[in-house]
Amino acid sequence: MDPLSTFFHPRGVAVIGASSQPNKLSYGVLHNLKTHGYDGSIYPVNPKGGEILDLQVYSSVDGVPDPVDLAVIILPPELSIKTLEACGERGIKAAVVVASGFGELGSGGEEREAKLKDVVDRYGMRLIGPNCIGVLDTATRVDTTFLTAMPIQGGIGFASHSGAICGGTVDWANTVGFGFSRVISLGNQVDVNMADALTSLAEDPHTKVAVAYIEGLPQGRAFVDAAQKLTAQKPLVVIKAGRTPSGTRAVASHTGALAGASRAFEAACWRAGALQVDNLEEVIDAGLALAYCPSLTGTDVALLTNAGGPAAVGADALDRQGLRLASLSDETRAALREVCPPGTMTGNPVDMLGGAAPEHFREALGVLEAAPEVHGILVAFVPQALTGPPEIARVVGEAAEGFEKPTVCCIYGGEDIHEAARRLHARAIPHYLTPARAAFGLGALRRYQEIRGVSREEPEVLTGVDSDGAEAVLRGVSGQQILDAHSGAELAAAYGLPVPPSAVVATAGDAVAVANELGYPVVLKRVAPGVVHKSDEGGVALRLGDRAAVQDAFDRIVEEGERAFVQRMMPAGLEVIVGAQRDPQFGPLVMFGLGGVYVEVFEDVAFRLAPLSESDARAMVLETAAGKLLQGVRGKPPRDFDAVVDAIRRVGQLMSDVPEISEIDLNPLIVGKEGAGAWAVDVRVILG
Amino acid sequence: MDPLSTFFHPRGVAVIGASSQPNKLSYGVLHNLKTHGYDGSIYPVNPKGGEILDLQVYSSVDGVPDPVDLAVIILPPELSIKTLEACGERGIKAAVVVASGFGELGSGGEEREAKLKDVVDRYGMRLIGPNCIGVLDTATRVDTTFLTAMPIQGGIGFASHSGAICGGTVDWANTVGFGFSRVISLGNQVDVNMADALTSLAEDPHTKVAVAYIEGLPQGRAFVDAAQKLTAQKPLVVIKAGRTPSGTRAVASHTGALAGASRAFEAACWRAGALQVDNLEEVIDAGLALAYCPSLTGTDVALLTNAGGPAAVGADALDRQGLRLASLSDETRAALREVCPPGTMTGNPVDMLGGAAPEHFREALGVLEAAPEVHGILVAFVPQALTGPPEIARVVGEAAEGFEKPTVCCIYGGEDIHEAARRLHARAIPHYLTPARAAFGLGALRRYQEIRGVSREEPEVLTGVDSDGAEAVLRGVSGQQILDAHSGAELAAAYGLPVPPSAVVATAGDAVAVANELGYPVVLKRVAPGVVHKSDEGGVALRLGDRAAVQDAFDRIVEEGERAFVQRMMPAGLEVIVGAQRDPQFGPLVMFGLGGVYVEVFEDVAFRLAPLSESDARAMVLETAAGKLLQGVRGKPPRDFDAVVDAIRRVGQLMSDVPEISEIDLNPLIVGKEGAGAWAVDVRVILG
Repeated sequence: MDPLSTFFHPRGVAVIGASSQPNKLSYGVLHNLKTHGYDGSIYPVNPKGGEILDLQVYSSVDGVPDPVDLAVIILPPELSIKTLEACGERGIKAAVVVASGFGELGSGGEEREAKLKDVVDRYGMRLIGPNCIGVLDTATRVDTTFLTAMPIQGGIGFASHSGAICGGTVDWANTVGFGFSRVISLGNQVDVNMADALTSLAEDPHTKVAVAYIEGLPQGRAFVDAAQKLTAQKPLVVIKAGRTPSGTRAVASHTGALAGASRAFEAACWRAGALQVDNLEEVIDAGLALAYCPSLTGTDVALLTNAGGPAAVGADALDRQGLRLASLSDETRAALREVCPPGTMTGNPVDMLGGAAPEHFREALGVLEAAPEVHGILVAFVPQALTGPPEIARVVGEAAEGFEKPTVCCIYGGEDIHEAARRLHARAIPHYLTPARAAFGLGALRRYQEIRGVSREEPEVLTGVDSDGAEAVLRGVSGQQILDAHSGAELAAAYGLPVPPSAVVATAGDAVAVANELGYPVVLKRVAPGVVHKSDEGGVALRLGDRAAVQDAFDRIVEEGERAFVQRMMPAGLEVIVGAQRDPQFGPLVMFGLGGVYVEVFEDVAFRLAPLSESDARAMVLETAAGKLLQGVRGKPPRDFDAVVDAIRRVGQLMSDVPEISEIDLNPLIVGKEGAGAWAVDVRVILG
Repeated sequence: MDPLSTFFHPRGVAVIGASSQPNKLSYGVLHNLKTHGYDGSIYPVNPKGGEILDLQVYSSVDGVPDPVDLAVIILPPELSIKTLEACGERGIKAAVVVASGFGELGSGGEEREAKLKDVVDRYGMRLIGPNCIGVLDTATRVDTTFLTAMPIQGGIGFASHSGAICGGTVDWANTVGFGFSRVISLGNQVDVNMADALTSLAEDPHTKVAVAYIEGLPQGRAFVDAAQKLTAQKPLVVIKAGRTPSGTRAVASHTGALAGASRAFEAACWRAGALQVDNLEEVIDAGLALAYCPSLTGTDVALLTNAGGPAAVGADALDRQGLRLASLSDETRAALREVCPPGTMTGNPVDMLGGAAPEHFREALGVLEAAPEVHGILVAFVPQALTGPPEIARVVGEAAEGFEKPTVCCIYGGEDIHEAARRLHARAIPHYLTPARAAFGLGALRRYQEIRGVSREEPEVLTGVDSDGAEAVLRGVSGQQILDAHSGAELAAAYGLPVPPSAVVATAGDAVAVANELGYPVVLKRVAPGVVHKSDEGGVALRLGDRAAVQDAFDRIVEEGERAFVQRMMPAGLEVIVGAQRDPQFGPLVMFGLGGVYVEVFEDVAFRLAPLSESDARAMVLETAAGKLLQGVRGKPPRDFDAVVDAIRRVGQLMSDVPEISEIDLNPLIVGKEGAGAWAVDVRVILG
């Protein structure tokens, strides 16, 4: 069910703080409601009474007649709170609070937000805002924003934490002629949040692709769940501000929202099946292609052009998008020769040269649509001869409308480029100013196919997990914030992670006795409070081959009153790292990568939200160079890939099951040859 | 001296193939020459005679009166060749051939090109083209193109292998109001090539930044030399089509030009001091910033905005460009509070909120220009209230014109965005549609500063090079295409590369004798024709510690009639690879990276043109992760960095001096601890 149904289908709307002055935002809201096609009742509210835009003004909200489902409150912060209360009393179930001056200011504002939240809870209302521009729906024609023009009707549903970005994007869209189904400006999301907005867009039949501009996501897992449900039906494009140090600072100072770590957000997008982009032009470029184009069923693109330069740049750009130039068949080339101007190069790019006329584009497009070796089409046109951008746009739009293959069009040019874009968009063909952006549009289609191809099944149940055993370990270490090596190993072992046998001893004699029992060689580590990175501080002795060596190492390393951790030493193998931490927004986050010094110089790591399915863990390993090494490179034998996948899943499950753990590292996990397993020889656990 | 001086300062221009029909290209050329302000003589040539555009038409080129310095030939290919000959006879020293149908077609066309070249050589002419649109100069007002409008006068000098890209870019520039000094469409560069064009732009006082669109560079080193001279005076932005497999194919099919390998071109840009970008929007974004802005003297940027969303996106984008938000001082923040609207967040981003008026932008810009902690300014405006893009553009342009700090402006919006861009560009403030592109503009300034900071001194002379010795080795191996291990080692040693002592032997007895002499342990390798990657084929025995082991290894590995290479085995160290190959366009190209299996999974390599200066080699190593490992990571000791730098330089020198070598690999070069040297234990040399 659409959680925002009342916002998009209100039988009546009260506009509280309505002004008769055309330069006021509230006048804009009234104007939009009245003139953009909304057919319900509109009730301006202002103590002054009178009429605005031929509408009767009510002096207070309790005087507004039925039906009234939605209140748009355009008043200063404190007054907005009081008015929301009055709306609750009046029985209005949905409200938009436009004012800024809340949580984004810090302490004082946060208290105001708490008051809003309190009103919402007491009356069971839904609230969008504060610090937002509200919502609009191009089908029901509700428009509570003060944007100067209603967007064109279209397939893009846009949810945004920034009202300004909604406004600027709608301006741009109106200029180049593409449309929206709904726009939802969420502001500080005191009540209605991004998860609600995505659920609403998932339910909306007019939304073909959802696009989200995201600042903070305090309810990270709710976002992931809502996004995952949405992407089961339609694509989701997301941009997250505050992914870099500077961006985080910008977000923090603006909305007071908690900007999540970039890695956690990427893992969340992976889980959600969302296509993440980096900047505003990519949002639009991807959104257009996904809203207009059919599926891209392969990687092979035909590039139709009237100039070699843009074609060459476009071909490079296709390559960077994981696409390539289709190898055209002899039949296709013969068919092209029949319809293209003399001199046309019928290889790919299909370069019809400077004199190509509109009908050449039309005919050649027909040939390429029919060519089975072509999965997608990129038209790149540069004004050269007598035909200008709008005329080519008209013809390409007419020819390619309804094609079964995704067709995108780059027209590079000048003053009349907006008109060209409008003509293409009217036929559902995405326009791009440059070849690289057109290639990006096709690339978004490719990435979406890839996302759809990932199976997102529920994680399978893990066998060999002893939760009681894990609890017992944690009970036994009360007071430790960082678990000692032996307890860490025991905790890992309880979750079925392979750890070499070990014990903690207090004397050299016990160390020798334990070593005899475990079998040689052994490792001996100093156990002392506060010593974590043992190897950095000389507290480790490796490859102790006999009792004398153990005795000697104990005497050398362990100080009076300390203890020693003795562990059977495992044979060498490929060293990888498996770790996890608890992200404040998205919860447990598992990491995998190459171990040792390489992890630092290459940052060769992948992240996933826990828990993980087997295929999820497998894909995670394959994202890294470590994954390639595990499979065997240049004559080196493959390593035990399955053992790594299993270890990753067990670490994820442990993090999911045991909220006391804030961080865990298996560093290294030593991976043996295929079938020989993987050993967690150093388990570091930090409790939260 | 400007090699294209005649093209830009002709006393008279003959337009051969002039047509009186306004839809012909030649009419366009005449029209442009006549109406764009050129003040020399214009002579249309056409056998039909008469008048065109009030100009007397001459029936043949030999009838054209003096002064005539330049011929623009707009005729079919074969006729163009004949006409060029006639121009040569007439004494015309410069010509533009517009026609396509030459080298870009392949075999038949290449012969036509050879004929053009022959005419040029016989008469000592300079020729631009064929397959081009000629040149224009906004200062001398010469315009031999048929572009529909003369560009605005500006600081960007544009040289391009694609005429269509010139045309499209000029269209765009005219729309958003930025200008060019010169446009040079080179086409197939039968005579005048990219190096000439860059030399010309270097000499042109009106060109503040040179921009080059590049397809093929048959004279790679000439390009590097010309670019290097240019960048000593002004910035150079380059885009190279055909850097990826698809792009290469597109270039090859279009111009017949040889598209160089991406790595070699990157190395060439490094040597030339050119700023390389990936797509057309980046060309313009970077070109605008470099043409308009003063130097960026640091990394700290103030972001002035009226909305948090675009600011957050902009901050992320700054970060990706190696820039960051400046930390504003208390003084600056106090000054901002005085001039900004109430509620303004005076941290950075400086967010003046939705109600910010033009005067707030003006005043705040003044404060930021005066703030010593700010190195550059990014204004990000989204239409929200009563003020639209053109008005903000006017005010920002007026305020920031002449600032000592680079100031760029993002205005996001709709229909009136072109007008806003024109107003900003009229004041030399670059406009960008989105925050990310504005950040890219500032990033280009940062990269340019970095490029300027690199010392590009001539390589120092290497001591310890025995050229005679190297020649002797090569004489001794005549017939070998791949040098045997011993000869490879000897060749390397002649150039002062440290190789462990070795010998080639025919019997097990000799192997033992040599090993005794070299000292143990030794390595023994099978020497047999065609065996290159020895370790892949089991032909290597390592760590032979005594005579018995040597004897045994010889018997096991070396077959009847073969020989063995015996070498002293060096202690383990960090394994890196130093190699070189001969690029068909740019000549010797040196590579450095991490050795072993890691080079393949990480592709952690850097490239440079040879020969290299010491600082060049040092910078090359520091580009790689291997460089970080050499410096010592997390407690690991540093390795002999200087020895690696020396080895890289010696390999570069060897490649430069000895043209017979087509490839060389030191794989691995084993690098010992600091001061312990680096050993080339396997030298593979391929002769060309």
